[in-house]
Amino acid sequence: MNFLEERIKRDGQVRAGNILKVDSFLNHQLDIDLLNDIGKAFYDRYKDLGITKILTVEASGIAIACITAQYFKVPVVFAKKAKSRNLDGDLYSSTVHSFTYDKDYKVTLSKKFLTSDDKVLLVDDFLAVGKAMHGLIDICTQAGCEIKGIGIAIEKGFQEGGKTLRDAGYDVTSIAIVRSMDENDGVTFETNII
Amino acid sequence: MNFLEERIKRDGQVRAGNILKVDSFLNHQLDIDLLNDIGKAFYDRYKDLGITKILTVEASGIAIACITAQYFKVPVVFAKKAKSRNLDGDLYSSTVHSFTYDKDYKVTLSKKFLTSDDKVLLVDDFLAVGKAMHGLIDICTQAGCEIKGIGIAIEKGFQEGGKTLRDAGYDVTSIAIVRSMDENDGVTFETNII
Repeated sequence: MNFLEERIKRDGQVRAGNILKVDSFLNHQLDIDLLNDIGKAFYDRYKDLGITKILTVEASGIAIACITAQYFKVPVVFAKKAKSRNLDGDLYSSTVHSFTYDKDYKVTLSKKFLTSDDKVLLVDDFLAVGKAMHGLIDICTQAGCEIKGIGIAIEKGFQEGGKTLRDAGYDVTSIAIVRSMDENDGVTFETNII
Repeated sequence: MNFLEERIKRDGQVRAGNILKVDSFLNHQLDIDLLNDIGKAFYDRYKDLGITKILTVEASGIAIACITAQYFKVPVVFAKKAKSRNLDGDLYSSTVHSFTYDKDYKVTLSKKFLTSDDKVLLVDDFLAVGKAMHGLIDICTQAGCEIKGIGIAIEKGFQEGGKTLRDAGYDVTSIAIVRSMDENDGVTFETNII
């Protein structure tokens, strides 16, 4: 098992409804050393691809994106989930369905921060059905930028998000791919390259 | 002028309604080197106070909190703005009015991540009226933890948030304190210790 799989085994909790709680280290309380290990793994994988921006979506993706960006020495841009008074000018936008909150929401990104010159690494903490990631890909398509890779901390391998993205030709790196999870039996992982 | 004041002068934009747009480096696109300079400044100021946790609120506070936490070598905890299916168990919560979005929202934090043993540094990107910060302080009061300092990137010194916090005895460090801002005349700053 790699560092993240071990951490999930130790501190993750499986709850009813395919919920894997990793809030003690990944998306509520944040273990910064662990985020650095994740960022390093993404850098090892994508360092030679001329990445110019790390793109994610608020909120928990921001933590992984910022730490990862330190290795690539490039800016982070994060898509916003609500239109605020402070977002003006031309925006890319895409509609995403959230299963966690059971509603549709719009993700938006200011056009000035993503252009056809950009080579982008997309990152997020979770990949399950892949709705949020498809929203980011939609925004990249609008911008005409090049998606060089997709870095995910935890992929739920028993849901279709990862397969759909790989079948579409995207280079997806998930540090931990959950094969199965059960409230009594815990978590098992797919064999992984990391 | 310090590094952040210079950056605001160069890349910030003043809009009607007391809006200071810093979205090219602080809260939409993120300049990670700048965030490191902010984190270092907070560390210089609070390194001897036995800080055990960096506390912030989603979303843009997460970026500053994560980079700052690397200097302190402590975890980040961020308060969430909506109750998701993934937040369960005992929660601290506080109601906050957002002037940006012109509505009330609840911030919540899992009780297991903040206790009376914690010595906390609160951080955020902006301090204006101070509603979000008072929500975090309310949560800290519920937890019984000790607030050792408050680190802010940009304080709007012409609004009451900073004065209210300092009058209440909090040790507030704002890297840039805006004295005045005007769409034509730009931004001026208060003399600052950083």
